[in-house]
Amino acid sequence: MPIVNVVLLEGRTQAQKDDMYKEVTDALCRTLECRPDQVRIMVQDFANADFAVAGKSVEAILAERAARTG
Amino acid sequence: MPIVNVVLLEGRTQAQKDDMYKEVTDALCRTLECRPDQVRIMVQDFANADFAVAGKSVEAILAERAARTG
Amino acid sequence: MPIVNVVLLEGRTQAQKDDMYKEVTDALCRTLECRPDQVRIMVQDFANADFAVAGKSVEAILAERAARTG
Amino acid sequence: MPIVNVVLLEGRTQAQKDDMYKEVTDALCRTLECRPDQVRIMVQDFANADFAVAGKSVEAILAERAARTG
Amino acid sequence: MPIVNVVLLEGRTQAQKDDMYKEVTDALCRTLECRPDQVRIMVQDFANADFAVAGKSVEAILAERAARTG
Amino acid sequence: MPIVNVVLLEGRTQAQKDDMYKEVTDALCRTLECRPDQVRIMVQDFANADFAVAGKSVEAILAERAARTG
Repeated sequence: MPIVNVVLLEGRTQAQKDDMYKEVTDALCRTLECRPDQVRIMVQDFANADFAVAGKSVEAILAERAARTG
Repeated sequence: MPIVNVVLLEGRTQAQKDDMYKEVTDALCRTLECRPDQVRIMVQDFANADFAVAGKSVEAILAERAARTG
Repeated sequence: MPIVNVVLLEGRTQAQKDDMYKEVTDALCRTLECRPDQVRIMVQDFANADFAVAGKSVEAILAERAARTG
Repeated sequence: MPIVNVVLLEGRTQAQKDDMYKEVTDALCRTLECRPDQVRIMVQDFANADFAVAGKSVEAILAERAARTG
Repeated sequence: MPIVNVVLLEGRTQAQKDDMYKEVTDALCRTLECRPDQVRIMVQDFANADFAVAGKSVEAILAERAARTG
Repeated sequence: MPIVNVVLLEGRTQAQKDDMYKEVTDALCRTLECRPDQVRIMVQDFANADFAVAGKSVEAILAERAARTG
């Protein structure tokens, strides 16, 4: 423990994820008094079409935005 | 909030998912007194081979059914 | 399937949850072509102190808001 | 119920997963007094790059190990 | 890994859970070629009122059943 | 997004959790180019009896350790 599940929208680079693993692990160890080797982090990337806010997929929201700003 | 995770077997169309986002968001707002912009829904599609019922993958169950009804 | 996990902040009544189970199940069946008996919904209530937005627990956010509006 | 989510690192064969479904279902039924048809198991395969231990992705850990044992 | 989340309806004894931890861990190790110390299992107990099947909470389903069989 | 679920063993103070929310949110924003208001973190505390490593609950592991060091 801690076991951390990070839900993201697709699109981050592996370098960003690798930085995140390091910094989030450090933050958890500083604040929760745990050792780095006790920390597991998993990333779940969701496609824009599989994540919805206010009843609309992010894919649809972005498409509408693009259409408006043409 | 609410944050909703919907686990499905693979195969729904995007149109079905988009309808689901709208109708489930409306249902949540009607019953839980929340605003649409507070609702997040994520869909996790599982392959038939990665989901099991009664100790058998859905893939195996469907294959057996197909073999029986040949 | 579908298996639905609904994360909420504590505080909804059981009547609200029971209405939500019915209406969300109907919405899923209408849009995803599944039967009611295939739908499972679980509710996870989180205490305000165990849920954070923008780095602050909802508990702290509400306390600040109450202090401001005294 | 029970509904079981099994997080794995990518790489198991389907045969291994199918054996696991059977044996874990049997284990659950033996110990929790439930019927096989009440048991659902889902497998989430994570890429080595999407799972981190001690602040480093499994991908990076394996690469370093390979480099050391070159 | 594996990291296993077991969702249950409230009511199992600790002895049942302890047996389950042992037998499920053994089943995972036999079928997925992993070591016991790599296996983590967490149990989430849901109240009957927080879990619904076919649009009705288990609590309501059991109450109706009790009323019918008086 | 990101939506972060942190599974912990029971026992952290609220002050530790509040520090964790702040520092993990900052770490995510630094590395994933997101805004604090986009970050949601939820903490799931597990009782020692509901979390097992290597087939044994943490509760049992700690009891054995205490008995050995009497």
